[in-house]
Amino acid sequence: MELNRIGNFEVIQGGVTAPKGFQAASAAAGIKYKNRTDMALIYSETPCVSAGVYTTNVVKAAPVLWDKAVTDSDVKVHAVVVNSGIANACTGQQGMDICRATGQAVADIIGGVPENVLVGSTGVIGMQIDTAKIVAGTKELMASKSFGIEAGTAASKAIMTTDTINKEIAVSFEIGGKTVTLGAMSKGSGMIHPNMCTMLGYVTTDICIEKKLLQEALSDVVTDTFNMITVDGDTSTNDTLLVLANGLAENPVIAEKNADYQLFRDALYFVCEYLAKKMAGDGEGATALFEAKIINAKSKEDAKIMARSVVGSNLSKAAIYGHDANFGRFLCAMGYSGADFDQNDVQLYFESKAGKMMVFDKGSPVPFDEDEATKILSEEAVTILINMNEGSASATAWGCDLTYDYVKINADYRS
Amino acid sequence: MELNRIGNFEVIQGGVTAPKGFQAASAAAGIKYKNRTDMALIYSETPCVSAGVYTTNVVKAAPVLWDKAVTDSDVKVHAVVVNSGIANACTGQQGMDICRATGQAVADIIGGVPENVLVGSTGVIGMQIDTAKIVAGTKELMASKSFGIEAGTAASKAIMTTDTINKEIAVSFEIGGKTVTLGAMSKGSGMIHPNMCTMLGYVTTDICIEKKLLQEALSDVVTDTFNMITVDGDTSTNDTLLVLANGLAENPVIAEKNADYQLFRDALYFVCEYLAKKMAGDGEGATALFEAKIINAKSKEDAKIMARSVVGSNLSKAAIYGHDANFGRFLCAMGYSGADFDQNDVQLYFESKAGKMMVFDKGSPVPFDEDEATKILSEEAVTILINMNEGSASATAWGCDLTYDYVKINADYRS
Repeated sequence: MELNRIGNFEVIQGGVTAPKGFQAASAAAGIKYKNRTDMALIYSETPCVSAGVYTTNVVKAAPVLWDKAVTDSDVKVHAVVVNSGIANACTGQQGMDICRATGQAVADIIGGVPENVLVGSTGVIGMQIDTAKIVAGTKELMASKSFGIEAGTAASKAIMTTDTINKEIAVSFEIGGKTVTLGAMSKGSGMIHPNMCTMLGYVTTDICIEKKLLQEALSDVVTDTFNMITVDGDTSTNDTLLVLANGLAENPVIAEKNADYQLFRDALYFVCEYLAKKMAGDGEGATALFEAKIINAKSKEDAKIMARSVVGSNLSKAAIYGHDANFGRFLCAMGYSGADFDQNDVQLYFESKAGKMMVFDKGSPVPFDEDEATKILSEEAVTILINMNEGSASATAWGCDLTYDYVKINADYRS
Repeated sequence: MELNRIGNFEVIQGGVTAPKGFQAASAAAGIKYKNRTDMALIYSETPCVSAGVYTTNVVKAAPVLWDKAVTDSDVKVHAVVVNSGIANACTGQQGMDICRATGQAVADIIGGVPENVLVGSTGVIGMQIDTAKIVAGTKELMASKSFGIEAGTAASKAIMTTDTINKEIAVSFEIGGKTVTLGAMSKGSGMIHPNMCTMLGYVTTDICIEKKLLQEALSDVVTDTFNMITVDGDTSTNDTLLVLANGLAENPVIAEKNADYQLFRDALYFVCEYLAKKMAGDGEGATALFEAKIINAKSKEDAKIMARSVVGSNLSKAAIYGHDANFGRFLCAMGYSGADFDQNDVQLYFESKAGKMMVFDKGSPVPFDEDEATKILSEEAVTILINMNEGSASATAWGCDLTYDYVKINADYRS
């Protein structure tokens, strides 16, 4: 990602350690993987207000239950400890005990309570984590934590599972003459479907903001970003997106929805959209980022469910993989989405860096050049643009193509 | 399928031509495919009462709109004309004109109106059918129609698209000393998802029954049979299931929900379940029939959505393909289905001809033998049995595994 100015903020180097006062670390704790880092720490000596959004899956993993209790309370947070390899989901009371033991390991070092620590897990469901290993790993993380971009990147890489690219970003902007910074990292490649946040994501910031507004901004932003991506329609048991704010930027505290709040919200939106698209494009086995843009729909809700239905359809996804101009599949997916519309109003276009063409015009197919269509659909990012001509609402959803490699990765994930 | 007696009825040879008075034919009309039959006719000189259930997709294909108008009316039906290759969906007024022209071609021969004819199409969406070709094909079908098993089978084969096996069945039973017969054929392999019927299916019968009760029996039976299968979550624009009853069995007319009605309903259920499972097991690229059986759930609706969520999950389907005992994926799919339950009540088993084993017991994983699990999951039909321990409702759904071949078939379906 190139450094550049976007609207009121600057994209800068780094991830979770970019904001003032945040340290990070990674460790190879042997939770499940051999010969790779599998634990990450985000740490702020200055206590943080926190906010979180979580999976809507009825089967919630232990770390989701633990974190929700923490972010719903007024306890200040100092650390986030995350492991990859095992998801600590479907693990009963033993799973909850592991969350507490992890928090206690940090509390023993800094003085405090286990609830000062948020935890996260990603990997195989229905397997227990070895408590001794995760506690030893946590101690190692605390001993080796440091400031600086490299530590943040190492933490971000440690939580990857089937991800092929590391996903982090940081932005800064001014509030009341003070520089405020947001940093973030996320992982997610399979079991990704819009319903709450569908991945693990961690945002750090040195902004000074009231907890209630931090949660409001996060809940607001997630609906149009992380909740609009899908890889496979499978809403995970572990989805978690957390924000920690330690206030070290020393800006005038944000206590109402003023212009400063709006600026922060926009920066948070940018960061979340960036990571969401990165995750969709890095979906398991994916060769292309697949975007569906619905415009002029009757309602925002209709636009959203149609956009998500198009990028979520296996047949649409397979057509994108095959660069096949089989536009009927996109219309079919809109039709079973639950939204109501008249196909005689609809116009459908293929769009990418290679060009744009209309293929369906208000109820009937439009003759088009197959070679030209294939060219447009062969780019790394492909958009299906659909004009409903029935209102003024719009929505965009992101997914990826369905490939042999998706099947390969998931037919034998545990080994 | 072996001939045998099941409950009160006998499974017999043949399909749609098994009941008295039904003829069939196939033709190679060159609608889209070359060198294969692509049109089918079912014909009864004796007028039939008819009933139908159709796709819930908002984008309905022209034949769906045509047939629904016919089965909703009191017009008697003599023929069904079906083509494969092009779906006649997203085709505007021209698509409706093609349905009418097809009906008119039959009406010209038998004397009558176009509405005496039901039509069906399956294939590529968003492409127009050449009217001259489908009219010529219809005339050829009418000229070559005949009685007998072979004609029924030829018709059944002509409507296949990516199907790899022909799907037909017939049963007979006694009502009031008269032999009543049901015959049926169906096609469906991709774009298959439970919402109305998700395929083309045609049932013929010589039973004497009032139209209203015929429709009631069909609507009743479809909810637990065709509506409980999924291949890829894509509810087609063309799904249609029709029943034609010509009354030639001369049984006392069924005019109320008596024991005779119940017998007919049971036979219809058997036929529909048989074809539904055949379709699921012959899902595009499938190597296994994948069954999810939910027992002791709080409500029937909960049981149904959980069963369908499990067989519909890409991650579950990929695990079945890999014979991978990754049971957390099934629990995860139940969790995001929309049903409410406590994972601490749930018991999950793998079951097939090779054996049965528990892998999850009320909130926690059960240690199990991996080799034994792989053996159970390697059969051609695999069941995930889930005891909710929360009530007394149950439901079964059928799907198939997700394979390289599914992606291959659908990445380039149009060519």
